[in-house]
Amino acid sequence: MQAVFEQRIRMPQLRSRVVDATEAAQWVKDGMTIGMSGFTRAGDAKAVPLAVAEKALHEKLKITLITGASLGGDIDKKLTEAGALSRRIPFQSDPVLRAAINRGEVMYVDHHLSETVEFLRASQLAPVDVAIIEAVAITEDGGIVPSTSVGNSASFAILASRVIVEINLSQSPELEGLHDIFIPGRRPHRSPIPICEVDDRVGTSMIPIPPEKIVAIVFTDKPDSPSNILPADEETAAIAGHLVTFFEREVRQGRLTRSLLPLQAGIGTIANAVLAGLADSPFQNLTMYSEVLQDSTFDLFDAGKLDFASGSSITLSPEKGREVFSNIGRYKDRLVLRPQEMSNHPEVIRRLGIIALNTALEADVYGNVNSTHLFGTHMMNGIGGSGDFARNAYLSIFATKSLAKNGAISSIVPMASHVDHNEHDVDILVTEVGLADLRGLAPREKAQTVVRNCVPEPYRQLLLDYLAEANRRGGHTPHLLEEALAWHIRYRETGSMLPDGLPELAAA
Amino acid sequence: MQAVFEQRIRMPQLRSRVVDATEAAQWVKDGMTIGMSGFTRAGDAKAVPLAVAEKALHEKLKITLITGASLGGDIDKKLTEAGALSRRIPFQSDPVLRAAINRGEVMYVDHHLSETVEFLRASQLAPVDVAIIEAVAITEDGGIVPSTSVGNSASFAILASRVIVEINLSQSPELEGLHDIFIPGRRPHRSPIPICEVDDRVGTSMIPIPPEKIVAIVFTDKPDSPSNILPADEETAAIAGHLVTFFEREVRQGRLTRSLLPLQAGIGTIANAVLAGLADSPFQNLTMYSEVLQDSTFDLFDAGKLDFASGSSITLSPEKGREVFSNIGRYKDRLVLRPQEMSNHPEVIRRLGIIALNTALEADVYGNVNSTHLFGTHMMNGIGGSGDFARNAYLSIFATKSLAKNGAISSIVPMASHVDHNEHDVDILVTEVGLADLRGLAPREKAQTVVRNCVPEPYRQLLLDYLAEANRRGGHTPHLLEEALAWHIRYRETGSMLPDGLPELAAA
Ligand SMILES: CC(C)(COP(=O)(O)OP(=O)(O)OC[C@H]1O[C@@H](n2cnc3c(N)ncnc32)[C@H](O)[C@@H]1OP(=O)(O)O)[C@@H](O)C(=O)NCCC(=O)NCCS
Ligand SMILES: CC(C)(COP(=O)(O)OP(=O)(O)OC[C@H]1O[C@@H](n2cnc3c(N)ncnc32)[C@H](O)[C@@H]1OP(=O)(O)O)[C@@H](O)C(=O)NCCC(=O)NCCS
Repeated sequence: MQAVFEQRIRMPQLRSRVVDATEAAQWVKDGMTIGMSGFTRAGDAKAVPLAVAEKALHEKLKITLITGASLGGDIDKKLTEAGALSRRIPFQSDPVLRAAINRGEVMYVDHHLSETVEFLRASQLAPVDVAIIEAVAITEDGGIVPSTSVGNSASFAILASRVIVEINLSQSPELEGLHDIFIPGRRPHRSPIPICEVDDRVGTSMIPIPPEKIVAIVFTDKPDSPSNILPADEETAAIAGHLVTFFEREVRQGRLTRSLLPLQAGIGTIANAVLAGLADSPFQNLTMYSEVLQDSTFDLFDAGKLDFASGSSITLSPEKGREVFSNIGRYKDRLVLRPQEMSNHPEVIRRLGIIALNTALEADVYGNVNSTHLFGTHMMNGIGGSGDFARNAYLSIFATKSLAKNGAISSIVPMASHVDHNEHDVDILVTEVGLADLRGLAPREKAQTVVRNCVPEPYRQLLLDYLAEANRRGGHTPHLLEEALAWHIRYRETGSMLPDGLPELAAA
Repeated sequence: MQAVFEQRIRMPQLRSRVVDATEAAQWVKDGMTIGMSGFTRAGDAKAVPLAVAEKALHEKLKITLITGASLGGDIDKKLTEAGALSRRIPFQSDPVLRAAINRGEVMYVDHHLSETVEFLRASQLAPVDVAIIEAVAITEDGGIVPSTSVGNSASFAILASRVIVEINLSQSPELEGLHDIFIPGRRPHRSPIPICEVDDRVGTSMIPIPPEKIVAIVFTDKPDSPSNILPADEETAAIAGHLVTFFEREVRQGRLTRSLLPLQAGIGTIANAVLAGLADSPFQNLTMYSEVLQDSTFDLFDAGKLDFASGSSITLSPEKGREVFSNIGRYKDRLVLRPQEMSNHPEVIRRLGIIALNTALEADVYGNVNSTHLFGTHMMNGIGGSGDFARNAYLSIFATKSLAKNGAISSIVPMASHVDHNEHDVDILVTEVGLADLRGLAPREKAQTVVRNCVPEPYRQLLLDYLAEANRRGGHTPHLLEEALAWHIRYRETGSMLPDGLPELAAA
């Protein structure tokens, strides 16, 4: 144990800072802004955040919590239940926190994931008082070696006045060397970001901070929460199939090569299934420049299809996690984890020419996408990195199943009830029904393409009728304003978007 | 005349290509894609486009027309009236063309202005058959020296199989040396764009193409169409005042220096007025990294406030145009004109940390902005560069007068009828009533801030009532879906957004 202890804290003078989580949590005080590691359930601090929640049960303690992205381990849930969150930035996906946000109890500031640290650096957000960062080790110089995610950890540690490090013994020390920590300079005199290929390493393998800022070190051994994506089903397989066919056509027409272009795949079941679908495709020497690396990344490595993957975190299912993390050395030369500012940087995304695949909750016939708001009002998760990628991609793809709630909801509607990505940023829309290639089309053309290719009956005919009537009224983007949101209203009132008289659909 | 002729076409073997506009227009054939110079009425080809319109009156001729941005000289009007446009990309601002677009007769593909040439280069749009480019000269090597705009001219000339050059004798030969033509490499192996300061010159002063591609040269002498912006009025002055006060506070709080950051100002009266308002401000050593340079740029030069301005075009009022272009040498070392891909490049905008000022048609209480669609359906101009700048800026400001049509329209509405810029990309919203600083706020907070700071009565109370009721229903972004677009519908039905019974406002 002493040996492990010394390996994990390689700077001797820091060893006296080891305390338990409750003691470390004393640094967190009412009104503070706290920056925590954690990106899509990977690499979150596991003990101190829960000790903060515990503390908030007994004293007045309301914090602004900023993370990389979503946390695991019920941290957001427990902090919400303890009433400890006044403000939450920039992403979450927890049902209990979500409900509190939608009740207006927690002020949720949903950001493009590349931007949060720009705001912090420019003092456009309150400064981070305490950073709480999971690590696999602290180096000889006091540098922090992150674990399964980088997220915003590097900038939090650099900008915060105090840093608490959680050393997680369940995270493989072999993760060291996987990270590439690069922080851009201050504007307006910033140099170009030197990443020109997905596998470029341009920074350090640890987060360099003055060791005196480390006020507490806590040992933990709880593993990351596994991903909660579902296995591929008939519909996600159909979506993957449409995309493979589309990519094959692009290759035939000379717009892509067999290596495609660096791939980004958003969170969730659909993106994972599509990526996994490339394992049996004719493509090869693929690369990824993405955010979260999910099971499919390692499936593609194992299938010999993928040459290199750059991300900001690794979030796997329980089985895949056991397999990958016990053999991480096998993948290490083909992987890099970067700060989310780099994995999602508009500059790098535009430069590399990325194929971005993200998921829509709903889209409208004109190709405007809602990724965040159920029925235009209730937050699901957040925009995440989808805007960083969709805006700057070579090819921006949005996927969704055409129906939700057994057909009571059509994911393709006359007008999106909330717009996260407008028609300018959506090149391809794909459902299990088919694929709409919207490049170079005007809105009226997009509408016909989307409805005819992506929507099943009876919604297809309803949309065609809507469009016919709207077109008579005119405009570049014709609408019947008094009916544009009627489907959403009808669902709230009747439990179905379908008008009375139309038969309910069979279970999808 | 012979001397002028030789100065303007410095490569002798090209001198035999001089023809009249009608003959040059013969290169343009039915079904072709034509790339024309011209950006916000500056530097458009003036003779051949009209000869194309004339030709279309007598034979079947339908083209896809791609430009930099909007054209002057009634070119879009005449081409529309002749029925010559099947498709128009990426921006326009002509009333006759706009009406044809809204009738669904011309397919209008509205782009982020930085993106059009990326699509062309990647064959994601049909290739340009003929480029028609206004120039002040052709160099010894056959390079084309653009006139008052660069826009997409360089890429059109490089990518097209044939190029027609219009040499405009009314454009000062002193413009030579003003341009900086840089074309990024092909993806995925592109190097960083080397522009790190607003005044960096990284390319050539002319468009280098193989001279054999120049199939015709036409001489013209018609000046650019002047800008049609209106002088500042009480409301635009109030908007400028609010912004100056805001900038002063940012300086006091250490977030900006007295030189602010490189400024971008969108097209139109408001942006011009705000920029002009900086002439009597305490700021100094200002710089611009913008798109169109308007009168205000030269007012700021003359007031000794502005050190350098980078743009893609210069569009001036008649008086200012006479003054500036007859003395362009005086400004030349403080000016550069770049391809719009560079003036609007996400990479450069994010790197420099720009203060972006664009105009909204309408915004909703949550800070979502509609810049393009009247009542959600009818195209005004297009998104232009506003998305390139707003998404990547250090500080993204949108300005609008709070009322239109003498108060019958509120520019702040419950829900935007079309979303070009979502709440993530809008930091500051300002009207003549006041300024809303939305940074770091959640939607419910944004709504109160916008309504209380930017909206006059009686709309203010109507919006507060709407929000109170919507908040009761819950959600991260509360709405009453059945009333969200009711104001727009009411205006269509009654000529006013105000409900019956409320008194019409006095003329604004
Ligand atoms: C959009 C997003 C929520 C989809 O995730 P997913 O897991 O594929 O979603 P599902 O299809 O399972 O739907 C989730 C829920 O929304 C419901 N839903 C789906 N479409 C809906 C619609 N159009 N209207 C209302 N509800 C809908 C589903 O029924 C499901 O409800 P349940 O939780 O009660 O079962 C998710 O991808 C996301 O949060 N994206 C935004 C962030 C992002 O894109 N990041 C990418 C870079 S990381
Ligand atoms: C938004 C934009 C149209 C505003 O331009 P402007 O000249 O300041 O606009 P005005 O306030 O004069 O309004 C233009 C018209 O719209 C009307 N209008 C204004 N607000 C309106 C609203 N909320 N609803 C309906 N009509 C409205 C005005 O009454 C006026 O009508 P008129 O032409 O019949 O007189 C213009 O800035 C634009 O096209 N922007 C998009 C492109 C862009 O931002 N480029 C920036 C980088 S170059």
